[in-house]
Amino acid sequence: MNLILLFAEDLRPGSLAELRGRRLKHVLEVHRAEVGDRLRVGLLNDKMGEGEVLELTREKLVLRVAFDQPPPQPLPVTLLLALPRPKMLKRILQSVTSLGVKQIYLINSYRVEKSFWGSPLLQPEKLREQLALGLEQARDTVPPEVHLKPRFKPFVEDELPAIIEGKRALVAHPVAAEPCPGSICEPTVLAIGPEGGFIPYEVEKLLEVGFEAISLGERILRVETAVPVILGRFRA
Amino acid sequence: MNLILLFAEDLRPGSLAELRGRRLKHVLEVHRAEVGDRLRVGLLNDKMGEGEVLELTREKLVLRVAFDQPPPQPLPVTLLLALPRPKMLKRILQSVTSLGVKQIYLINSYRVEKSFWGSPLLQPEKLREQLALGLEQARDTVPPEVHLKPRFKPFVEDELPAIIEGKRALVAHPVAAEPCPGSICEPTVLAIGPEGGFIPYEVEKLLEVGFEAISLGERILRVETAVPVILGRFRA
Repeated sequence: MNLILLFAEDLRPGSLAELRGRRLKHVLEVHRAEVGDRLRVGLLNDKMGEGEVLELTREKLVLRVAFDQPPPQPLPVTLLLALPRPKMLKRILQSVTSLGVKQIYLINSYRVEKSFWGSPLLQPEKLREQLALGLEQARDTVPPEVHLKPRFKPFVEDELPAIIEGKRALVAHPVAAEPCPGSICEPTVLAIGPEGGFIPYEVEKLLEVGFEAISLGERILRVETAVPVILGRFRA
Repeated sequence: MNLILLFAEDLRPGSLAELRGRRLKHVLEVHRAEVGDRLRVGLLNDKMGEGEVLELTREKLVLRVAFDQPPPQPLPVTLLLALPRPKMLKRILQSVTSLGVKQIYLINSYRVEKSFWGSPLLQPEKLREQLALGLEQARDTVPPEVHLKPRFKPFVEDELPAIIEGKRALVAHPVAAEPCPGSICEPTVLAIGPEGGFIPYEVEKLLEVGFEAISLGERILRVETAVPVILGRFRA
């Protein structure tokens, strides 16, 4: 936790914030903070700054907070990700959030197991927990929006054209001829398939609406490795 | 498992290979192969090719194998990694192996917990298992060499100068002024600290022997995210 993420309901009159639960535990056990220490804080969807520890007990942490810095720039990427298995999804959501992605579409694909769509992790409050961990890691305050799209064809045909409008659209596909660009600054929609890849029909559908297929080379990477490898080539 | 990694002891006269255990289970349950199918195989530290399924039962898999392709090019990177916690080390070893790194030094740092050095995962046969998973994922046959360096100062002073000789040497350090280069082709030694980073003394020692400090920007990334982000900028 490189930043304590604060929510509107944590704030108290007089520029104070009051915390309990997971964040209090972390400040006690990991930061091992003491009264007078200054901790980095950020207000959800707002500015970042410092919080001075006024009171710290097993019950609560009281901070005097001041916000004076904007959060870091977002990455100019809209990520379309074939829904990974829940355990991997947790890590990927945290990692993608820490890298600054602000729009995530979890989409279906032939090789996505149907049971994944029933995972409790996809409930809004569970998703928010993972996104908060990514923001606290990277020192950011703006969580990505996560959209669930359990039907591939209607999503690609009816919604995707508007999403990629005015942007570059890339689909990572191991057998593509074109290598992934080394450095990308322009707004981009990036589609990454499941373990085993999108099936040819799915790649065809994406190409039809305007995607270019790019390859990361002859090595086949796990999704959780491929995602940071590709996102690392984008500049805010 | 995008390639079945074969060892010399799997080979039988007449270009045959005989498998049991984990790889047999995977071919039965994930590949769901049948007699006559052709599977991608590779011989440890040697060529890759195809294996035709001659016999497949609960007890064993017999393949007729032919090797005709070289493994993919290695990444020109020697990785120095502050020893991560065991659970994360597993994933990082697989991911780094899949990306084509061939020299890994697991080193000590002030923020590495002492207990990590006692992890059973550091036993040679346990390390080999993780490396094999990375090779099978990426379709490679050449595992990295993993060197354990539990003492920071003697390693940096006595061994590191010879390791970086003739190479570029970079240390990822969040507060460095210089951004990480966008694309790197030259042979490089890359040092990545623990969660929380190298302490200033450690960075100083690395700079003294010839490292340059580079930053990945204002976002602080977890080690398992930072590693593929940086390695993704190298070209074989």
